Amino acid sequence: MLPDKLRVLSTLLARLPGVGEKTAQRFALYLVQDNTGLASRLGELLFALPSLIRPCEHCGNIAEVNDAGAAVCDICADPRRDPELLCIVGRVADLIAIESSGAMRGRYFVLGRLLSPLDGIGPEELPLERLRAKLRADGVKEVILATPPSVDGEATALLLGKELSREGISMTRIASGVPHGGDLEFADRITLGRAIGGRLRVEPK
Amino acid sequence: MLPDKLRVLSTLLARLPGVGEKTAQRFALYLVQDNTGLASRLGELLFALPSLIRPCEHCGNIAEVNDAGAAVCDICADPRRDPELLCIVGRVADLIAIESSGAMRGRYFVLGRLLSPLDGIGPEELPLERLRAKLRADGVKEVILATPPSVDGEATALLLGKELSREGISMTRIASGVPHGGDLEFADRITLGRAIGGRLRVEPK
Repeated sequence: MLPDKLRVLSTLLARLPGVGEKTAQRFALYLVQDNTGLASRLGELLFALPSLIRPCEHCGNIAEVNDAGAAVCDICADPRRDPELLCIVGRVADLIAIESSGAMRGRYFVLGRLLSPLDGIGPEELPLERLRAKLRADGVKEVILATPPSVDGEATALLLGKELSREGISMTRIASGVPHGGDLEFADRITLGRAIGGRLRVEPK
Repeated sequence: MLPDKLRVLSTLLARLPGVGEKTAQRFALYLVQDNTGLASRLGELLFALPSLIRPCEHCGNIAEVNDAGAAVCDICADPRRDPELLCIVGRVADLIAIESSGAMRGRYFVLGRLLSPLDGIGPEELPLERLRAKLRADGVKEVILATPPSVDGEATALLLGKELSREGISMTRIASGVPHGGDLEFADRITLGRAIGGRLRVEPK
């Protein structure tokens, strides 16, 4: 029913995360009927994207390619960031979430994937060598393991804790528990178990 | 936090229907981290889109631009379609839905918008002149008003019924009632009212 080109467009749009066939067709119809130039502007930018933005050479965060053709992200380029504190995350989206909390004053390392035996992703698929090189090069003193508190995230944190542990590096894992504003009544058992297990001492003032 | 170009990309993507700021950012991050060439292919196609696909000159359906630079959709180009039966719809998506039912053997006319006093869309915003010209040119004998059974859709059907009624044109409205497989218990009052009001005689075999 749709013209060929529009079907191709739908198929490409359906590869975006969380977009199904119907939604992709809706996007395609919208783009072809829009008369404000959205399709052209989006097209121009997307076509140029790979030459404009690349993973940061130091940490894997997204970074704008500079005039010399190198990609170094704002965080790695910022001299005020503590190079001795390294936060290891699974995805760029997690890095952005932590950054927006303002709680991190060090640098990051993006793994790009988590251990996932079910999907055939074993330890050899993780960038352990690059990570070790970074620890040495930056003289890292503290590593924060900020992979998500999921099965894959925990397995990855466990592996990293074992692989990277070395004299002189303190290694911590982000806290897992009842979220801010959350209701104990509606928290699941595992979350409550972690909230109890990870309890902190209340210091008298 | 995001590089400038990626923020621009997010803003453009957020203009797609049903896409909010968070989802747009997720799409942008996915596109920049994908390494299968999705961004380039999508970009190329989107940039060329306005020159490849345009509204059909006869009915407003989407149509591929042919070598002569004209856009005539498959339905208008099909000589087996009955030109005397015209189905008027609000959007191209509605036309596609009706086509996929296989119940329509005539041609279409896409209004592009519905009457919507709240959004400041009055009768003068509807393509009534083009519609009248089409009725005359094709010698239309039956018009099916297939605007949706919503407040705006009903108002539009009412207006079209008044404006287009003419000796020799039979005008019908699509049926509204309990959908196929639907449960009477869970149908709303208005739908049930329409199902009763639009009841059809059961002919003995």
